Amino acid sequence: MKIAILLFDRLTALDAIGPYEVLARIPGAELSFVGTKRGEIRTDNRVLGLTVDRTLDEMPRADIVLVPGGFGWREAAKDPAVIAWIRQVHAESRITSSVCTGSLLLAAAGVLDGVQATTHWSYFDELARLGAVPTQGRIVERGKIITAAGVSAGIDMALALAARIAGDDLARAIQLGIEYDPEPPFDAGTPAKAPPHIVEAVQARLRSRDASLS
Amino acid sequence: MKIAILLFDRLTALDAIGPYEVLARIPGAELSFVGTKRGEIRTDNRVLGLTVDRTLDEMPRADIVLVPGGFGWREAAKDPAVIAWIRQVHAESRITSSVCTGSLLLAAAGVLDGVQATTHWSYFDELARLGAVPTQGRIVERGKIITAAGVSAGIDMALALAARIAGDDLARAIQLGIEYDPEPPFDAGTPAKAPPHIVEAVQARLRSRDASLS
Repeated sequence: MKIAILLFDRLTALDAIGPYEVLARIPGAELSFVGTKRGEIRTDNRVLGLTVDRTLDEMPRADIVLVPGGFGWREAAKDPAVIAWIRQVHAESRITSSVCTGSLLLAAAGVLDGVQATTHWSYFDELARLGAVPTQGRIVERGKIITAAGVSAGIDMALALAARIAGDDLARAIQLGIEYDPEPPFDAGTPAKAPPHIVEAVQARLRSRDASLS
Repeated sequence: MKIAILLFDRLTALDAIGPYEVLARIPGAELSFVGTKRGEIRTDNRVLGLTVDRTLDEMPRADIVLVPGGFGWREAAKDPAVIAWIRQVHAESRITSSVCTGSLLLAAAGVLDGVQATTHWSYFDELARLGAVPTQGRIVERGKIITAAGVSAGIDMALALAARIAGDDLARAIQLGIEYDPEPPFDAGTPAKAPPHIVEAVQARLRSRDASLS
């Protein structure tokens, strides 16, 4: 089973690495990190380098495709090669998935036209603007399209995906293997749960960083 | 505030990337990925490449040091340069932390002699053998040493660490930024919660893979 994870400059690392850590444990899974050219890309903050091992041309088909997010989604959405690749792999994929603002990239490729999907909580308007139907949920599954909420939601999505592909027991084994028994020290993971002044501060910071990269 | 995250061949990516995604959001944090030599290392399954940006010699001091785990910990523990570096940075660090089997590497460097610490649930015996006092807990804090349980526990640890350094509200803002409101589709994240046959299967698989790399 071939799994393609898209990498692009200024992505958010955990969007890709959370699901990777789960999906790589599915027996028979062959994961590839793909991008416009081989070699290193840097994350949203430039702090971390990740390696693209295969070009988009080298991987025109995948059983599962996963598109992460990050501020770089805007630039990636302007790249005709990326958009064409998403359309092409999606046409034959068994599952097309995204994490965080990765769904905006799917939407930019037309994959989410009129489809219910989620994204990072601060990008719902943008998702609507790109033709999708923003829908609350940590994971939104509509046929073969699975979208996850912001950043860390990719771990939950990948476990659901592992269960769909390889059964509940295998998903439980993976959960145990990565000791995924979360105990966040705070309960502020969504705008509904976080204090309003924190929601405002985070949204302002995201908008400012996003604007500086546009 | 300088933060050093150790990278070594055959590490488990999420051990490092989970905390990175949290710690990089602390205002004033300067993260560096360090290793024995600059350039690419590959993860435990060889599927992903991550970039070492600074050598150990180039970063002899850090306010926060984070040591991830992964099957490669055994080889890393045999490298005198890695052991010497851990001792050196720990001597002057504000916080020394580990995720998963990263604590075995700390222990191999003598940092955990007689100290209560945790690790991945299947490596408690090994942690004791290396001189630490294995202690249950998703996060075990003893003075400036913070150890986390397996793989995904690094996210919880990093949030606790962010709170300690920059206050609860900042940690909540980071949690909201990465939308960390976990909803695992199963409840099998610890040996106590997973069905016994799954615990046995995962342990057998870990031992077999670990042995094949020893």
